[in-house]
Amino acid sequence: MSLNEFDIIQQYFSQLTRPRNDVITGIGDDCALLVPEAGKILAVSTDTLVAGRHFLADVDPASLGHKCLAVNLSDLAAMGAEPCWVSLALTLPEVDENWLENFAQGFAQLAEKHNLQLVGGDTTSGPLAITLTVHGQVEADAVLTRNGARPGDLICVTGRLGRAALTLNQLLNGAAVTEKARMALERPEPRVAVGIALQGLATACIDISDGLMADLGHICLASKLKALVDTSAVPGPENTLDQETRLDLALTGGDDYELCFTFPEKHKDRLLQIAQQTEVSISVIGRMHEGQGIEIFDESGQMMEMPAQQGYMHFS
Amino acid sequence: MSLNEFDIIQQYFSQLTRPRNDVITGIGDDCALLVPEAGKILAVSTDTLVAGRHFLADVDPASLGHKCLAVNLSDLAAMGAEPCWVSLALTLPEVDENWLENFAQGFAQLAEKHNLQLVGGDTTSGPLAITLTVHGQVEADAVLTRNGARPGDLICVTGRLGRAALTLNQLLNGAAVTEKARMALERPEPRVAVGIALQGLATACIDISDGLMADLGHICLASKLKALVDTSAVPGPENTLDQETRLDLALTGGDDYELCFTFPEKHKDRLLQIAQQTEVSISVIGRMHEGQGIEIFDESGQMMEMPAQQGYMHFS
Repeated sequence: MSLNEFDIIQQYFSQLTRPRNDVITGIGDDCALLVPEAGKILAVSTDTLVAGRHFLADVDPASLGHKCLAVNLSDLAAMGAEPCWVSLALTLPEVDENWLENFAQGFAQLAEKHNLQLVGGDTTSGPLAITLTVHGQVEADAVLTRNGARPGDLICVTGRLGRAALTLNQLLNGAAVTEKARMALERPEPRVAVGIALQGLATACIDISDGLMADLGHICLASKLKALVDTSAVPGPENTLDQETRLDLALTGGDDYELCFTFPEKHKDRLLQIAQQTEVSISVIGRMHEGQGIEIFDESGQMMEMPAQQGYMHFS
Repeated sequence: MSLNEFDIIQQYFSQLTRPRNDVITGIGDDCALLVPEAGKILAVSTDTLVAGRHFLADVDPASLGHKCLAVNLSDLAAMGAEPCWVSLALTLPEVDENWLENFAQGFAQLAEKHNLQLVGGDTTSGPLAITLTVHGQVEADAVLTRNGARPGDLICVTGRLGRAALTLNQLLNGAAVTEKARMALERPEPRVAVGIALQGLATACIDISDGLMADLGHICLASKLKALVDTSAVPGPENTLDQETRLDLALTGGDDYELCFTFPEKHKDRLLQIAQQTEVSISVIGRMHEGQGIEIFDESGQMMEMPAQQGYMHFS
């Protein structure tokens, strides 16, 4: 069966997500027409996932639908923004209805969870790739950025780090992985609720897509400060790996989509409240200082050498 | 020389377009932060262009930079929206600095013309493809959609139709083309000023990306009306082709990015004013009636058969 692009969009995507009442026109006209909330600012993020580069071409399509959206929602989470609308540009080598149905289902399930409406997109023929643009809204004085960290602020991370990288390594080596390990790689949960809870509290925030060292490095650079990290406090994968591998994964493994944020020590009590309210663990892993770059220390306070792999770089 | 994705974005794109004062954060954080204008609605459109499908891989990169943006601005034009912000997702097989510089220059030149700021994006490694998401703003009661045409309304088009398809055919056949003909295909001018001038006047509007018959068909479907078109009034390519080929190109050739709109006859005098003010020709080519579909007529009023090729369909 052959479908043209209009049919594809109509059939799989037009009714995919629950309508929001701030959407005048969704899929079906030249543009989506959206009503921004008075007084709020708009947070917009775009990410592309390319087969063979960001995911294996034979990945479960439902997981892919989940993950491409999770990656983008994670950017909204990092700004403390509430998800609203998304557009989906899908480039497909062929029309495989079973694949599309599963992709759409994985995508829709996560969108529903965050009250996100699919409002437009484009379907083209070509090598498999997905570009999403998500829109969120946030009060101007509550938005989280990378540049507001202050000396003395605590450095915190959500969840566990290095789990996605560990699973990817295992899969690439042909090892068996548990369902839970696979989920860490293929179905990351964007920390939207944590980001919103951090509004007006965290001084800087970023999501960990390229590895803790790379992403904390962005906060340091933007805030013009140095980060001192106690590696014994960094939550690595729940695993029986040797300590060095575990730490390397936690410091440099990408694709976890946890949040890294800086937090004034005087509000420290709020961290536990936020962790309880959002049901996401939060670890304090260090402190911001005057200076630049990152220094890492072991449990006895000895400075350590930085692990070699500094996150995930395209073209490098 | 090898560049990582951060360098590429920084080097070629971060300072590419003039800053607007409604952009709090552009490129460089997890999301762009934008300030919507109070009371206006947001028009958002996404389009993907894939090498070998939407353009020849060896196309002049400056023309490609222009065209990918023109295609998206044309969607804003069709809604009568004023361009504001754009994000660019660029997938590249390799880092070719000369190519990037030229692409950026073609992109920036058109963006500047429409006061559009590049506010974010993503650079990934893979088969050459470009996805843009443009944002415009428009008063809620002035927006143009596809579904407002009324019986008796005049059907109008801007510019000339079929020029891009003619040039493409010639290039694919290895024929020489004039610079002007090449520009029609590679550097279409989005009709943003016409779209804005039509606010509150045109009853329905669409941009002609897939060919007049296909796109006017969308207005008919959305407005639940029939279009009667006088083919002798349809402005074809300025060329010495035989009449039938010329008409086929004008009716079914895609990629011209002119506007097709319906207009109340009582405001007919305004058409000339708009054409003069925007310096874009406008032709009245027919009239909307009760019914459905499109009927086409020759200069003597004889109904004609529809041309075979019905616009540009992916996967069909």
